[in-house]
Amino acid sequence: MGDIFSDRISDVPRSFIREILKLTLDKSVISFAGGLPNRDLFPVQEIKDATDRLLEEAGKDILQYSASEGYLGLREWIADRYRSKNLIVHPDNILITNGSQQGMDLLGKTLLNDNDDIIIEEPGYLGAIQAFSLYRSSFHPVPVSEEGIDLDAFHNTVTRHSIKLFYCVPNFQNPSGISYSEGNRQTIALMLKGRRTILMEDDPYGELRFLGKEKSSFYQLMPEYTLLLGSFSKIVAPSFRIGWIVAHDKIMEKLVIAKQASDLHTNYFCQRIIHRYLRDNDIDKHIRKIREAYGRQRDAMVTAIQEYFPAEVLSTHPEGGMFLWITLPKGLSAMTVFTAAITQKVAFVPGDPFYVNKNDVNTLRLNYSSVDEETIRTGIQRLGNVLKSLIIKK
Amino acid sequence: MGDIFSDRISDVPRSFIREILKLTLDKSVISFAGGLPNRDLFPVQEIKDATDRLLEEAGKDILQYSASEGYLGLREWIADRYRSKNLIVHPDNILITNGSQQGMDLLGKTLLNDNDDIIIEEPGYLGAIQAFSLYRSSFHPVPVSEEGIDLDAFHNTVTRHSIKLFYCVPNFQNPSGISYSEGNRQTIALMLKGRRTILMEDDPYGELRFLGKEKSSFYQLMPEYTLLLGSFSKIVAPSFRIGWIVAHDKIMEKLVIAKQASDLHTNYFCQRIIHRYLRDNDIDKHIRKIREAYGRQRDAMVTAIQEYFPAEVLSTHPEGGMFLWITLPKGLSAMTVFTAAITQKVAFVPGDPFYVNKNDVNTLRLNYSSVDEETIRTGIQRLGNVLKSLIIKK
Repeated sequence: MGDIFSDRISDVPRSFIREILKLTLDKSVISFAGGLPNRDLFPVQEIKDATDRLLEEAGKDILQYSASEGYLGLREWIADRYRSKNLIVHPDNILITNGSQQGMDLLGKTLLNDNDDIIIEEPGYLGAIQAFSLYRSSFHPVPVSEEGIDLDAFHNTVTRHSIKLFYCVPNFQNPSGISYSEGNRQTIALMLKGRRTILMEDDPYGELRFLGKEKSSFYQLMPEYTLLLGSFSKIVAPSFRIGWIVAHDKIMEKLVIAKQASDLHTNYFCQRIIHRYLRDNDIDKHIRKIREAYGRQRDAMVTAIQEYFPAEVLSTHPEGGMFLWITLPKGLSAMTVFTAAITQKVAFVPGDPFYVNKNDVNTLRLNYSSVDEETIRTGIQRLGNVLKSLIIKK
Repeated sequence: MGDIFSDRISDVPRSFIREILKLTLDKSVISFAGGLPNRDLFPVQEIKDATDRLLEEAGKDILQYSASEGYLGLREWIADRYRSKNLIVHPDNILITNGSQQGMDLLGKTLLNDNDDIIIEEPGYLGAIQAFSLYRSSFHPVPVSEEGIDLDAFHNTVTRHSIKLFYCVPNFQNPSGISYSEGNRQTIALMLKGRRTILMEDDPYGELRFLGKEKSSFYQLMPEYTLLLGSFSKIVAPSFRIGWIVAHDKIMEKLVIAKQASDLHTNYFCQRIIHRYLRDNDIDKHIRKIREAYGRQRDAMVTAIQEYFPAEVLSTHPEGGMFLWITLPKGLSAMTVFTAAITQKVAFVPGDPFYVNKNDVNTLRLNYSSVDEETIRTGIQRLGNVLKSLIIKK
């Protein structure tokens, strides 16, 4: 059973992060490597109440097979939520998926032919690189900064290539924590006007803003060509794997076929539990609690970085989400820092997996959402010492 | 947004069954069209107990992200279950999937290139035809009968083509209810010896035998080239979407990458609930209850068919599972019967969607698992009247 594999599967990068996470199983290691929400904020009791009530009232229903589109009640809730943010979406244009990761897979299945040109962010979300690699995309990475996408590079790429798809995470991006400014979004929408590029707006962190003002969604700026991905993983519970795609009728029709072929439908039991939880509880109050906690954790990390990192080391200043991004002095490989850091019992993700075809980069990702403030301080101090010793050596 | 779709998505047949199911929403229609387990047998109270205990003891854990391979405890349970049936499988060779439907998608992703030749059963499982269509397979349907696959046709196909994959449901097949005899399985294994064909053994119904003797699994007959798919949908609850793939180390490694790219991991909350349910309850006792009920429902249908159907109409005699298969006299289209039957408030699935490129076939599928015995009798009587009137007219 040697050469039995498909060509596409050998194109997909293995998640390097998984390997790193194995090293962090040692409890004495402070890990900023994960991408996990803060487990202390999970609404355990509320989920228990919702589940108990549902099983009592509709036990047989919620254990049976269900529709490929997803539970209508939940799709209505999502549509209502968008309406409260001035986005007009009909429940029929929402497909429930196994987290937004599956949204990418289904859109890849539905839209992408081999070698289709797509723009991704650099650095970009590893899960998207993996998902689109399966459909043998030709990647065009365009750099992002604290302002958003690099507009010159973006313009060059859309004029030189026939871009099928632009995948972006405009709010509190994974891995960098950056957000697109209002102007950046407007300019992108203008640049894409008259082209047939589809913009895939992945927004798993949008609700987790603790600083600054809410920005326009691309779905508002260019509704006809935007596909919107959402998720309950960061505001309710990731283990449920419940996300969604917002798409036009024509695309929805094909997406439902792709969904049937992929797994018939998303876990219905958990769709009903989330819906019941949302109905019986004040989700805005819960989200405020998460925002406040992550805001404090982010502040603890930014403050500790200012105190303990050498001045040559640069950091992003996220207004929300779970990550921040570090740029080391040129020539210092994040992999070298990682190896040294592990011996000092602190871990992070070197930037490499967030690039297509780049190695030994001088950037790295830090996660603050899953580590408490005191531990953040200790961990950043340890990492600061490692950085100082390596930068002096250079 | 017209010509934006991938070539692959236009190859996938839409599930015609979905359209039919809409017609059966009318409560006065007796429907043999579904493919649903009997909801009255769902272990609602036991699931509630398992969920309550888990949320009390490990609430935060079971709401967090988890491993792409699936929960180790559940993989160990599955390996133990196989061991009790003399199949030696290591937990590391089990990947938890969103039902066995996702098993097909992940194997398609991992193994199939465009135009790879694959053998499917005729009639065959629609979900498999959909899943493999996405990977642009070249289908070679080989007929099945109550003995199993047509061995002459199978031999011809494997000698004339370089067959990458043979997909089969050897126990109580969907749609026909047939099973492969022991001899049929042995001969297939012999015919494939020395070839590099991968056999995908899909076994969602294997536990639901109410008649006859258990047969060898292909995984026992040709372990090196068999991939085994399993599911909890028919023995615990389908809404959980929990199934699995058994595969060799090398394939597992690629499958895990495909799983990450597809949806990170299967719903962890429900993996833990099923595991806890299996630990705290006697699953064999529960399965016996399902077997006995389905055996009675199957007998009610077979008896009613003998009583009410014209003698020219033939039926299979399943030893387990949820379906039986009707062959009408030549020239009588099941679609014609369907249209007449709906006016008489009885529904089924015409055979068409279970074939690749065949229309107006003279076969149809009946489901007995989701209809009680008395209703089965009434429905089959109605259908018998429709058949009589159509056969006389001819």
